[in-house]
Amino acid sequence: MGSTFGTLFRVSTFGESHGKAVGAIVDGCPANLELTEADIQPQLTRRRPGQSALTTQRDEADQVTILSGTENGKTLGTPIGLSVNNKDQRPGDYGEMDVVPRPSHADYTYLMKYGNKASSGGGRSSARETIGRVAAGAIAEKWLKKRFGNIAITAYVSSVNTVECPDIDPETLTRELVDATAVRCPDPAAAQKMIERIEEAKAAKDSMGGTVTCICRGLPVGLGEPVFDKLEAKLAHAMLSMPATKGFEIGSGFAGTRLLGSQHNDVFVKKGDRLGTITNYSGGVQGGISNGEPIIFRVAIKPVATIGLAQKTVDLDGNEVTLEAKGRHDPCVLPRAVPIVEAMTALVLADAALQQDVRRL
Amino acid sequence: MGSTFGTLFRVSTFGESHGKAVGAIVDGCPANLELTEADIQPQLTRRRPGQSALTTQRDEADQVTILSGTENGKTLGTPIGLSVNNKDQRPGDYGEMDVVPRPSHADYTYLMKYGNKASSGGGRSSARETIGRVAAGAIAEKWLKKRFGNIAITAYVSSVNTVECPDIDPETLTRELVDATAVRCPDPAAAQKMIERIEEAKAAKDSMGGTVTCICRGLPVGLGEPVFDKLEAKLAHAMLSMPATKGFEIGSGFAGTRLLGSQHNDVFVKKGDRLGTITNYSGGVQGGISNGEPIIFRVAIKPVATIGLAQKTVDLDGNEVTLEAKGRHDPCVLPRAVPIVEAMTALVLADAALQQDVRRL
Amino acid sequence: MGSTFGTLFRVSTFGESHGKAVGAIVDGCPANLELTEADIQPQLTRRRPGQSALTTQRDEADQVTILSGTENGKTLGTPIGLSVNNKDQRPGDYGEMDVVPRPSHADYTYLMKYGNKASSGGGRSSARETIGRVAAGAIAEKWLKKRFGNIAITAYVSSVNTVECPDIDPETLTRELVDATAVRCPDPAAAQKMIERIEEAKAAKDSMGGTVTCICRGLPVGLGEPVFDKLEAKLAHAMLSMPATKGFEIGSGFAGTRLLGSQHNDVFVKKGDRLGTITNYSGGVQGGISNGEPIIFRVAIKPVATIGLAQKTVDLDGNEVTLEAKGRHDPCVLPRAVPIVEAMTALVLADAALQQDVRRL
Amino acid sequence: MGSTFGTLFRVSTFGESHGKAVGAIVDGCPANLELTEADIQPQLTRRRPGQSALTTQRDEADQVTILSGTENGKTLGTPIGLSVNNKDQRPGDYGEMDVVPRPSHADYTYLMKYGNKASSGGGRSSARETIGRVAAGAIAEKWLKKRFGNIAITAYVSSVNTVECPDIDPETLTRELVDATAVRCPDPAAAQKMIERIEEAKAAKDSMGGTVTCICRGLPVGLGEPVFDKLEAKLAHAMLSMPATKGFEIGSGFAGTRLLGSQHNDVFVKKGDRLGTITNYSGGVQGGISNGEPIIFRVAIKPVATIGLAQKTVDLDGNEVTLEAKGRHDPCVLPRAVPIVEAMTALVLADAALQQDVRRL
Repeated sequence: MGSTFGTLFRVSTFGESHGKAVGAIVDGCPANLELTEADIQPQLTRRRPGQSALTTQRDEADQVTILSGTENGKTLGTPIGLSVNNKDQRPGDYGEMDVVPRPSHADYTYLMKYGNKASSGGGRSSARETIGRVAAGAIAEKWLKKRFGNIAITAYVSSVNTVECPDIDPETLTRELVDATAVRCPDPAAAQKMIERIEEAKAAKDSMGGTVTCICRGLPVGLGEPVFDKLEAKLAHAMLSMPATKGFEIGSGFAGTRLLGSQHNDVFVKKGDRLGTITNYSGGVQGGISNGEPIIFRVAIKPVATIGLAQKTVDLDGNEVTLEAKGRHDPCVLPRAVPIVEAMTALVLADAALQQDVRRL
Repeated sequence: MGSTFGTLFRVSTFGESHGKAVGAIVDGCPANLELTEADIQPQLTRRRPGQSALTTQRDEADQVTILSGTENGKTLGTPIGLSVNNKDQRPGDYGEMDVVPRPSHADYTYLMKYGNKASSGGGRSSARETIGRVAAGAIAEKWLKKRFGNIAITAYVSSVNTVECPDIDPETLTRELVDATAVRCPDPAAAQKMIERIEEAKAAKDSMGGTVTCICRGLPVGLGEPVFDKLEAKLAHAMLSMPATKGFEIGSGFAGTRLLGSQHNDVFVKKGDRLGTITNYSGGVQGGISNGEPIIFRVAIKPVATIGLAQKTVDLDGNEVTLEAKGRHDPCVLPRAVPIVEAMTALVLADAALQQDVRRL
Repeated sequence: MGSTFGTLFRVSTFGESHGKAVGAIVDGCPANLELTEADIQPQLTRRRPGQSALTTQRDEADQVTILSGTENGKTLGTPIGLSVNNKDQRPGDYGEMDVVPRPSHADYTYLMKYGNKASSGGGRSSARETIGRVAAGAIAEKWLKKRFGNIAITAYVSSVNTVECPDIDPETLTRELVDATAVRCPDPAAAQKMIERIEEAKAAKDSMGGTVTCICRGLPVGLGEPVFDKLEAKLAHAMLSMPATKGFEIGSGFAGTRLLGSQHNDVFVKKGDRLGTITNYSGGVQGGISNGEPIIFRVAIKPVATIGLAQKTVDLDGNEVTLEAKGRHDPCVLPRAVPIVEAMTALVLADAALQQDVRRL
Repeated sequence: MGSTFGTLFRVSTFGESHGKAVGAIVDGCPANLELTEADIQPQLTRRRPGQSALTTQRDEADQVTILSGTENGKTLGTPIGLSVNNKDQRPGDYGEMDVVPRPSHADYTYLMKYGNKASSGGGRSSARETIGRVAAGAIAEKWLKKRFGNIAITAYVSSVNTVECPDIDPETLTRELVDATAVRCPDPAAAQKMIERIEEAKAAKDSMGGTVTCICRGLPVGLGEPVFDKLEAKLAHAMLSMPATKGFEIGSGFAGTRLLGSQHNDVFVKKGDRLGTITNYSGGVQGGISNGEPIIFRVAIKPVATIGLAQKTVDLDGNEVTLEAKGRHDPCVLPRAVPIVEAMTALVLADAALQQDVRRL
């Protein structure tokens, strides 16, 4: 279980890192949406490794094929099958790890849970699993734009290790701006520092974490279901389902807990034909439902667990060993996490939008 | 939608703050668990208002009745109906708010979503909705103890405004220790400062937020489903579905993003018949699956939106008004949030445990 | 599990026959539908025992209370809690059955499944469980009428034992016509024979089965989801989930298997602004989707298992015993099944309609 | 929606008849089950067209590929991706039908539902969609045999048009016996008559329907969930979700409605260490739960809608036209329906078995 996400706009992913293919079925995408592989590939390309010296040098083309659900370039309303072949891998790279569970990886817990272990490369817990998410998210995003017009879901790297990106004006943020630097931080000065910091980690055979911030503009009021499926609850679920994530905060988040109610409340003003708020400590969501202000949230991503540095740990029998990763690996996955955050956000929003449309009848 | 939580251990809640009753149906609780109202009432009593000078003075007895699903003090394996009557309320207290949406409340978004508004008191977005969760969570917790023996789910107030509780040894934490002070912080010195701080806010007709930390001990390895239903994803979902929550972090959380991989990795050691880790930056979860170490996470709760201080805002027509809450309200809901956090945690864990038991066949 | 039905219009029922209450939560009913207990009670009254000499003489008033989800006589869009108290029962009536599993009842299978047994009266397998369905179905039906105007869901007793009701013109069928006789067969001559037959069974302390036919008019084209959730699949699921049902057929059903394709195909003609069919062997559904013709299906209901006649059977230890039911019981439940069939049909159709409305975006 | 079936053992299918591939994701299959394509292919081969002169002469090899979820010939516990490529088709065969909705086909209802139409061959409503079901069902069946030992799910053609197969002793039925004749009827004399009848229909460019009976032996007591997910309700759902099915009956079915309760009740006897019944009017299910007797049900399948005979109908604009199918088609799909019935049955039983195993804790 656990490989399906969403209620009305629903994605089910499949695929291990070293099997024949990874992919997804997207069920619930409305009919008559223009859709070809060209709509999906750009986000997959942003996600794939080997884009810059900051990320792993594996060459994985990650070309997606639509197996079903479209005809003549439009969706039929039926399940959209998506598949990306796995290229020939070098499983030998990971050999030692088969007897030694890698610290802070899923090797040990998968083995305990299933009584088996995918032979190499992380199997289902590999970041390669996110290919299905990104492909599905690209479809969700395309539908959201058709449904609501000028919406924008834009994520960026807001910190790497202790280097922080200064506050960004939500209205000026674009993916072009984000992609202007290899680290996907829209502030050039901060980006430069982040890049230097990551290169240090790489040189030291170490790794770095950071945060990704995501801003959604142009959404209507009313998305999110009360009680258990509040919009922020679904977003938190989506973000913490990504590999290596350790935290989520929306609007004022943890810092907001240190404010008084009188400081924190977002009082209303008239904004065109709707009510808006002056401040946005709420992060665009009140009572679990979007209020028309930008949705802003932040995700904590831990430093990559696979490092070249030697680590003293134990094998499955409890014998002390020293582990040194020899495979290619990212010193920092933050830049590649950006399109995954956007994809999961699009999936949450498309699902919420379909649920809200039902309510209108 | 959105009023059901869980897959195998499933709770559906119902009830507005001023309707006849609030409650829940719990479906999926295994048969032959000893269960009476006395197992449920204590957590409801910890949740209810009027427990101390720190919380609202409304007198709501909140006595639960089991409507179905048990016989002779044992569960039948059928749905457990739970109901708590609403006492006579004074809806007049909230009268002004009917035309003026309260800042940072759900009034405006519910109105936009549904095209209507529960007349008073927040309706479904009221904290009274959490009664069903707490009742269901008490059942989940009782079953977890039967299934796994000596497990403990213990939450406490880890900060109020800028007052922080020092780190707590997970092994010494108990509910008795937590309940020793009215603010439910197990460190007496910090608790005293928190209480003073809340009394200041109360005197100033203002409100305060903070954080609740939850620690789960004694759980087996293997809970949590890969990919979308990772244990931390479900916990994040659960926590962000609670009213007034703005953030979630597990293990090292946001602070961990500033560590290097070599610092952050939890290397393995032999612990009895299983592998354990020396450090616990992972927070008890690796690859989305429990690893046998204590599960530790933290929830950010914003300052209560209802304050006695005057606020300049606008009514639904956009006219400027000054709003002053006259109803009774909590200056700080953190102490009452403790049993709700525990309840939602128990629901997530019971559901994960049943899903894992299926895997064993 | 198994106490929830539906995806978007969803009902969860609770309650054993001799517990405090039976009822349901209806989640997903759109907001702003006019709804009070008076909309629900009539179908509950048609379902309840003691309506005529043909049915059991227990006096169960079965008055429903709406616990949540409405205000000022309109739905809020939130879960609608429904409860019917169980009156004081005489559990002693069923005493002997506690050690002797009743033939063709659920006593033995429940005991094997759960390792326990509700002390008397069938517990969750009792027909009393259907109260929640009927209450929920009345809400679904009311919404369908608001959504689609002049729709009609009308079930009737089409056979009792070997007495068959002649074919009925779908256009003339009304609930008034159905209720004109105690047996709920709209053909007076057939009804008279059915009544006589049931009285014979009653006198002989025996019981009789039969069939209920249901006709739905005025529905739009397009209801039903392809592949697994075809409209006829959901209807079959709904009907076979009712106690005592053994079969379902739609349109030509089993008899249609003896026709040639050239006889059975429903060729199209122009009917106003849509295409219609001359014949209706399809029963209003093609490819799992409603085609605008009346939906017609038939349900087989076995003779009631509880009979006054002595039966030679064995107790749980395998000892031979003779069992004679002393409790009050229906010689024929067909008339009371009519509103239950209508309720389950309304739940299927409302759910399908909401799913189809999502597709239109 | 509607492309996913099951709760714990869950299959999601994808694919149109003329797209790149059809297939399925199976989620929830327990880990460590031995599984290769060789376990799946036999039932696909029994399903595929071109097996005998009775079925369509299209040559579709229908070779399945496992894309994920297994390693070294064993399941990992992760989603099993299954794909079957569509060979080069001749869409021109169906050209005329694009403007003329075929009588008793899904052309018209799909067009109305989705506002589009797969260009040829039925798209998602094509029988080719059942490939995913059959592949998934083969996995479910393999797991059931591992879990419960010597179980058997065997379907056969019990009638074609008016030719009926005499009653079969459940204990002697095997797939070998069923496959001994091209029509998959285990009674040689009846089979011969069925074959002659089908050849008549083929010569007359007409088509024939019939019934498939399915018998499940060796299952434990306790499968099936009360109320809405009774075992017979899930089986009925599964069977009516297959293309061309019009009816379902279990045990005594419709004929049983003409018996008295005293005739119909299955009284208990001691059978080894469990209670059994002498008769089996219940069809192996009481109160929605398996009772250990053979599960026996029957499915009505209408005559194929595609016929070579000319049919007077109308096009989408309502103009009268004469339609003559030129594509290759089956005069009788009953023999090919046998493995599909078995597959859907296995999916229902595996899902019920996993749900029951959860209850045992």
